[in-house]
Amino acid sequence: MVLTIYAPLFASSKRAVVTLVEKGVPFETVHVDLMKGEHRKPEYIAIQPFGKIPVLTDGDYKIFESRAIMRYVAEKYRSQGPDLLGKTIEERGQVEQWLDVEATSYHPPLLALTLNIVFAPLMGFPADEKVIKESEEKLGEVLDVYEAQLSKNEYLAGDFVSLADLAHLPFTEYLVNEIGKAHLIKDRKHVSAWWDKISSRPAWKEVCEKYALPVSALPV
Amino acid sequence: MVLTIYAPLFASSKRAVVTLVEKGVPFETVHVDLMKGEHRKPEYIAIQPFGKIPVLTDGDYKIFESRAIMRYVAEKYRSQGPDLLGKTIEERGQVEQWLDVEATSYHPPLLALTLNIVFAPLMGFPADEKVIKESEEKLGEVLDVYEAQLSKNEYLAGDFVSLADLAHLPFTEYLVNEIGKAHLIKDRKHVSAWWDKISSRPAWKEVCEKYALPVSALPV
Repeated sequence: MVLTIYAPLFASSKRAVVTLVEKGVPFETVHVDLMKGEHRKPEYIAIQPFGKIPVLTDGDYKIFESRAIMRYVAEKYRSQGPDLLGKTIEERGQVEQWLDVEATSYHPPLLALTLNIVFAPLMGFPADEKVIKESEEKLGEVLDVYEAQLSKNEYLAGDFVSLADLAHLPFTEYLVNEIGKAHLIKDRKHVSAWWDKISSRPAWKEVCEKYALPVSALPV
Repeated sequence: MVLTIYAPLFASSKRAVVTLVEKGVPFETVHVDLMKGEHRKPEYIAIQPFGKIPVLTDGDYKIFESRAIMRYVAEKYRSQGPDLLGKTIEERGQVEQWLDVEATSYHPPLLALTLNIVFAPLMGFPADEKVIKESEEKLGEVLDVYEAQLSKNEYLAGDFVSLADLAHLPFTEYLVNEIGKAHLIKDRKHVSAWWDKISSRPAWKEVCEKYALPVSALPV
C-alpha cells in the first residue's frame, strides 16, 4: 500500500511530509495546483470536503488536517525512526499540549504575517499594516512563553524531539526567511537554539530541497 | 492522586470536564475568577504560562489546552467508559482529523459569534456586525460539510462517539441557546439529529447542571 500526499509543496502539507521523512516512510506525491483552483474541483472535494490541503491517502484510507496526518503517521510507524509522540501517556500529553498551542496560538498570527507580507505583494492585494503590527506583537508574546519553556527543556514537550516541534517548521521557515522577521526567533536565546536544532535536522533539509515551492505555484 | 480542573465553569474548560464525566473519573475543581483577573496572577501563570483556561493537574503532572486534556484523560482511562479515541489507528486518525477541524475551522467563527453576540452586551463593548455576518457564513459552510459527513456516519469520526463530537459541545450549546442561532443546527437534518444525540448524553447534561456559569463570573 503506497502512501500518497497531496500538495506537498505548500507549507501546511510540509508538516505531514517532514513526519513521513523523519519516520523513513516511502510515499508518493500528487501536485495540486491551487492557482488553477484544483482544490475546488469535485474530484478533490471528494477527498477533502473543505477544499483544503493536505490530504494523505493510505490505500483506501484517507485523512486530512496536517496535524492529524502527523499523528497518524507517527502512530502507525511508531516502531521506526524517532518516537515523535513521547514514550509515556504523560509525555504524549505534553506533545498534544504543545501541538495544540502551535495550532491555536502560534500559527494564527504567523499565518496572518505570511499572508500580508509574503503573499499580498505576490497576489496584488494590499497588506494590512494594522494586522501585521498586531500579529507580530501576538507572536512575540507567544514566543516569550516558548523562551521560558525552552530554557528548561531542550524541546517543547520535554527533552525529546516530537511532533510538537516539527509542526512549527514550515511557517517558521517563512518567518525567518521570506517574512524577514528572523529577529523574533534570533533575539530569544533558547528559541534561537531550538530553531537551529530543529531546522537543521536532515529530514527538514531534505523536505526544503525536494519540495521547494516555485513562485508560479503560489499562493497557499 | 486527585485530578483537579481549573476554571470548570467556562466553555473551553467544559471540553475537559465532560471527558472526565464520560470516563467516570473523579475530580476536584478550582474556580478561577476571570473577572478579578486571577488568570493573570503569578500563581496561575506558573501553571498556565499563557494565562488561559483550563488546566488539569494530576498530582505533580500538569497539562493545559482543552483538547490536549481530553486526549490525556481518554488515553489514561482508556479501559473505562466509552472508548473516545476509536479502537484502531485508523479510527484514531479520524478522531484526530475531526478534532482538528473543530479547533481550526469550527471553533474560530463560533468564538467570534459568542464574543460579539453574548459577551459584547454583557461587557459593554460594541458588537461588530461585519464579523457576525462573516462568522455566520463561515460556520454555515463548515456545517454544510458536517451535514454531508453525518449523513453517512452517525458521529463525526464514524459510527462511534468520540472526543471529536464532545469537543463541539460547550460552544454549540452557546450557539443553540445564548447566541440565538439554533437554525444553523436545526436547518440541517443530520447535524440536528447529531446535536440532539450528543447534547442529551447524561454526561453533558450533568456538566450543564453542575457547572452552570453565573453571569457574574463572565466573561470567558
